[in-house]
Amino acid sequence: MKLTVYLAGQIHDDWRSEVKKLAEEHHLPIDFVGPMENHDRSDDIGEEILGQQPNPILKDEAASQINNLRTQVLMNKSDVIIALFGKTYKQWNTAMDASTAITLGKPLILIRPEELHHALKEISNKAQVVVQTPQQAIQALSYIFETA
Amino acid sequence: MKLTVYLAGQIHDDWRSEVKKLAEEHHLPIDFVGPMENHDRSDDIGEEILGQQPNPILKDEAASQINNLRTQVLMNKSDVIIALFGKTYKQWNTAMDASTAITLGKPLILIRPEELHHALKEISNKAQVVVQTPQQAIQALSYIFETA
Amino acid sequence: MKLTVYLAGQIHDDWRSEVKKLAEEHHLPIDFVGPMENHDRSDDIGEEILGQQPNPILKDEAASQINNLRTQVLMNKSDVIIALFGKTYKQWNTAMDASTAITLGKPLILIRPEELHHALKEISNKAQVVVQTPQQAIQALSYIFETA
Amino acid sequence: MKLTVYLAGQIHDDWRSEVKKLAEEHHLPIDFVGPMENHDRSDDIGEEILGQQPNPILKDEAASQINNLRTQVLMNKSDVIIALFGKTYKQWNTAMDASTAITLGKPLILIRPEELHHALKEISNKAQVVVQTPQQAIQALSYIFETA
Amino acid sequence: MKLTVYLAGQIHDDWRSEVKKLAEEHHLPIDFVGPMENHDRSDDIGEEILGQQPNPILKDEAASQINNLRTQVLMNKSDVIIALFGKTYKQWNTAMDASTAITLGKPLILIRPEELHHALKEISNKAQVVVQTPQQAIQALSYIFETA
Amino acid sequence: MKLTVYLAGQIHDDWRSEVKKLAEEHHLPIDFVGPMENHDRSDDIGEEILGQQPNPILKDEAASQINNLRTQVLMNKSDVIIALFGKTYKQWNTAMDASTAITLGKPLILIRPEELHHALKEISNKAQVVVQTPQQAIQALSYIFETA
Amino acid sequence: MKLTVYLAGQIHDDWRSEVKKLAEEHHLPIDFVGPMENHDRSDDIGEEILGQQPNPILKDEAASQINNLRTQVLMNKSDVIIALFGKTYKQWNTAMDASTAITLGKPLILIRPEELHHALKEISNKAQVVVQTPQQAIQALSYIFETA
Amino acid sequence: MKLTVYLAGQIHDDWRSEVKKLAEEHHLPIDFVGPMENHDRSDDIGEEILGQQPNPILKDEAASQINNLRTQVLMNKSDVIIALFGKTYKQWNTAMDASTAITLGKPLILIRPEELHHALKEISNKAQVVVQTPQQAIQALSYIFETA
Repeated sequence: MKLTVYLAGQIHDDWRSEVKKLAEEHHLPIDFVGPMENHDRSDDIGEEILGQQPNPILKDEAASQINNLRTQVLMNKSDVIIALFGKTYKQWNTAMDASTAITLGKPLILIRPEELHHALKEISNKAQVVVQTPQQAIQALSYIFETA
Repeated sequence: MKLTVYLAGQIHDDWRSEVKKLAEEHHLPIDFVGPMENHDRSDDIGEEILGQQPNPILKDEAASQINNLRTQVLMNKSDVIIALFGKTYKQWNTAMDASTAITLGKPLILIRPEELHHALKEISNKAQVVVQTPQQAIQALSYIFETA
Repeated sequence: MKLTVYLAGQIHDDWRSEVKKLAEEHHLPIDFVGPMENHDRSDDIGEEILGQQPNPILKDEAASQINNLRTQVLMNKSDVIIALFGKTYKQWNTAMDASTAITLGKPLILIRPEELHHALKEISNKAQVVVQTPQQAIQALSYIFETA
Repeated sequence: MKLTVYLAGQIHDDWRSEVKKLAEEHHLPIDFVGPMENHDRSDDIGEEILGQQPNPILKDEAASQINNLRTQVLMNKSDVIIALFGKTYKQWNTAMDASTAITLGKPLILIRPEELHHALKEISNKAQVVVQTPQQAIQALSYIFETA
Repeated sequence: MKLTVYLAGQIHDDWRSEVKKLAEEHHLPIDFVGPMENHDRSDDIGEEILGQQPNPILKDEAASQINNLRTQVLMNKSDVIIALFGKTYKQWNTAMDASTAITLGKPLILIRPEELHHALKEISNKAQVVVQTPQQAIQALSYIFETA
Repeated sequence: MKLTVYLAGQIHDDWRSEVKKLAEEHHLPIDFVGPMENHDRSDDIGEEILGQQPNPILKDEAASQINNLRTQVLMNKSDVIIALFGKTYKQWNTAMDASTAITLGKPLILIRPEELHHALKEISNKAQVVVQTPQQAIQALSYIFETA
Repeated sequence: MKLTVYLAGQIHDDWRSEVKKLAEEHHLPIDFVGPMENHDRSDDIGEEILGQQPNPILKDEAASQINNLRTQVLMNKSDVIIALFGKTYKQWNTAMDASTAITLGKPLILIRPEELHHALKEISNKAQVVVQTPQQAIQALSYIFETA
Repeated sequence: MKLTVYLAGQIHDDWRSEVKKLAEEHHLPIDFVGPMENHDRSDDIGEEILGQQPNPILKDEAASQINNLRTQVLMNKSDVIIALFGKTYKQWNTAMDASTAITLGKPLILIRPEELHHALKEISNKAQVVVQTPQQAIQALSYIFETA
């Protein structure tokens, strides 16, 4: 049995690489998918495909329609979603993806530093698992494959 | 025909009163529902019902289970969701509620200051309507009831 | 028992008035809902609420987000959809509304002149009832309420 | 990961070949499916299987039941739908397929010449991505598979 | 609390009147709905609305599209379905309605003479309740409303 | 706005009366529904309707089909489910009802003495709210209706 | 692309062999599944697994629970259902399976002799395709795989 | 065709080994999945991943979030659920898993000693198949694959 896991959240550091490396170390049969991690490309993809837009809002709208296409296709293929919240960014799209997954019946593993708990309390309450590090998330995934 | 509209978003100013007053002025047959607007009560409701908790995280968890109960029941009853994002707060629960509504097939009207567009671009793209003021949201709702 | 019926289709003649008048003559307990029938208002509603747009495409996009809000809310409330196709217009939104209704498990009554059959053959095949006149559609609705 | 993409729309020119060729050039792991592209065969398939029909309407009904069988089976298997609208035909079945896909939770990429925007504004608003050329549609699909 | 109950099954005797009379005697707050019970009218309704058809099969097709419209609308409104099978007729539409109800999450009460058990064994196994008389079906419905 | 609340759980003491009395004292607009509380009648209802059964297992099967009919109809009508677990009984049907409600998207309030926590830990984790007394459950329901 | 097709209907002649042979001749990539075709085994499977039952009704109930298990598992795996009605038997389970498939969003191909049309008119109206012979059903399936 | 079968129920004896051995003997193409069978590990997994918890209830809550993650992922992948109830334990989570499966449209095979029938009568009534031994459950699964 293979699982597909969507990695939602900030694309400003290399937490996804850490997750993938840990999964490899545990020999977990998991395909990881997620958003475009090249931040500039993610912001520019709308204009790249649709041409220059008249203003920043329309540039954003053009980009988000392509990014949301990617997210919808990959989340439909996924069995589990991991969402990581960091201290710096707004991350409203991460909260949106997390909630979409839950409503579609796919379990959410939430990774967040403890100090963000208050602001994340409603999402924490809906998540299936709440942890603080990518390593703990991998431990939870690993447990799915363990036999006694 | 009556509609029920859930008002998601920050509870730190009186935007909900403005929405309700405008709806009354337009004589719209709408029941508005939403989260507990008394901020302290919203934070304390868990301990009020379940007793004192050992630490702030557990206090938050206790509160969020009661707040999410309220949200789930009222959103299930709603025909439309309005979500307002302001400049100050994290508002991850607002993003979560907005996404839950969309996934359940209920249209979202998003209210946000234009300067938040970049951070909200993925949610904007999923919203049915994006506006900047409560008055515009009410105009959109009013249009549903208009006859030629 | 009351029914709510959504009247999809062109807004360029008074077929909806005919449907409503016939329903009244049959004393049918039906609430009719539908799109904004004032064509100019339907085209202008986006700019009316969101302000002037930089070009016709964006004016259309602004209008369609408000019009689709209205359609989604009213179709969610409806038990049956009637879609009328005439000879003149593109009416792609009518085909879209008809198909949305069917996929949501709500039966479609299709009204069309016989000469349009070829172009409408796939929608005809998915419709629950295909007729040529509003009067026939009302007869079909009336039959739902009849007792032997 | 492989994707299946349904190509809805007119069968009077070779736009599907262009889409497939471009996908091959990008080495995209995509299986394309779609309607019968031989127009005469599509019109005659009902009589071919069910025998001669008494009149053109019944010939159309016979054909559309077989064509809709094909569409339903292949759309159920698909992850994304691309719908292309051209300038010439009614294309109501294309609008129907597009809307069915969206209602089933499958994202729609809409290809249309800009001059059709007004007539397609409600479908554009529901589509996940709106472009003008097959090449742009392939760029959007390609983006799903890209890694940073 | 009121319930709506759909009475599926043969329209050749007065079992529905018996059900309704018994419900009245028990003062049950139930609205009963069901198919057209006038057999000739049920067979002729297609031609009545759509005009004379070229052959009996097309007459049947015309009638069944109107009868299925009625069934779909009324079953969507119902909380429970009662299906009665008698000894004489094919009653394939009754089996179809029963199965539709179950798949939609609405419980089925099956009424049948014991001697039909073998032919009905798969439907019996899917029904929530299997009885032999309308009176037993009403006892089961009455039990829903009882307080200790 | 009115809510309907299903009270699942043991029928051997008067906890439902306490819940209803507390709701009345809080003037909550709630209709409470639930299983047959007369234990003997609940066990005997199958034979009462279907006649004497050959053995205790078939008597149980006859009763459970009628009891499950009642549960399914009333749970379909409910907005919230409260499930109370006590110390004495198996209560597997209570666990079943609780899980059905959650899977249908209806929130669960779980009432249980703290000493049962270990055995109920998986259900607790899926419940929206976990409390120890009917009074706490009513406080949670009351909070849904409060305005600031 | 492979399809799985469930063959519902009578098990008293060899129509399934004919379907499979024709599919092989057309080189169609289809896995056919269906009910147990050994009639005695189908009737006896309940007692074979659960032991002798006290009476014929309970023997039937035991058998149907195992047969319905098989049907549910295999229909969940299927993309299309073919249902064949013959002249001799009650075939209520065939009507039930056909309707379950349709309600689950899987298209139905109905095979029946023309003389059964009247009794099958409501199911015919819900089927995606109605034919008279297994050969025609295979032609319809073959058409799904054809490229122009 | 391969099936995935989830084995819910107590983890205190080796009934799963027996099921798997029997399936192997019958050469059934089945992948069996299920909960963590090492009881201590199942109880301790929460603290292992999340660190020591302040009290037994929170230790249980930590464990159950990881165990429920495993269950949700594996049940989403399964075609059939087998739930075994023994005489000793509370097994409320088994009842919960069984009911979740049924509500999701996956058939349940219930294994229980006959003396538990009364307490399990409502679940028995919802199960597709009720047997007393793992061997009988395997016979039922085997029947799905048999050809006449």
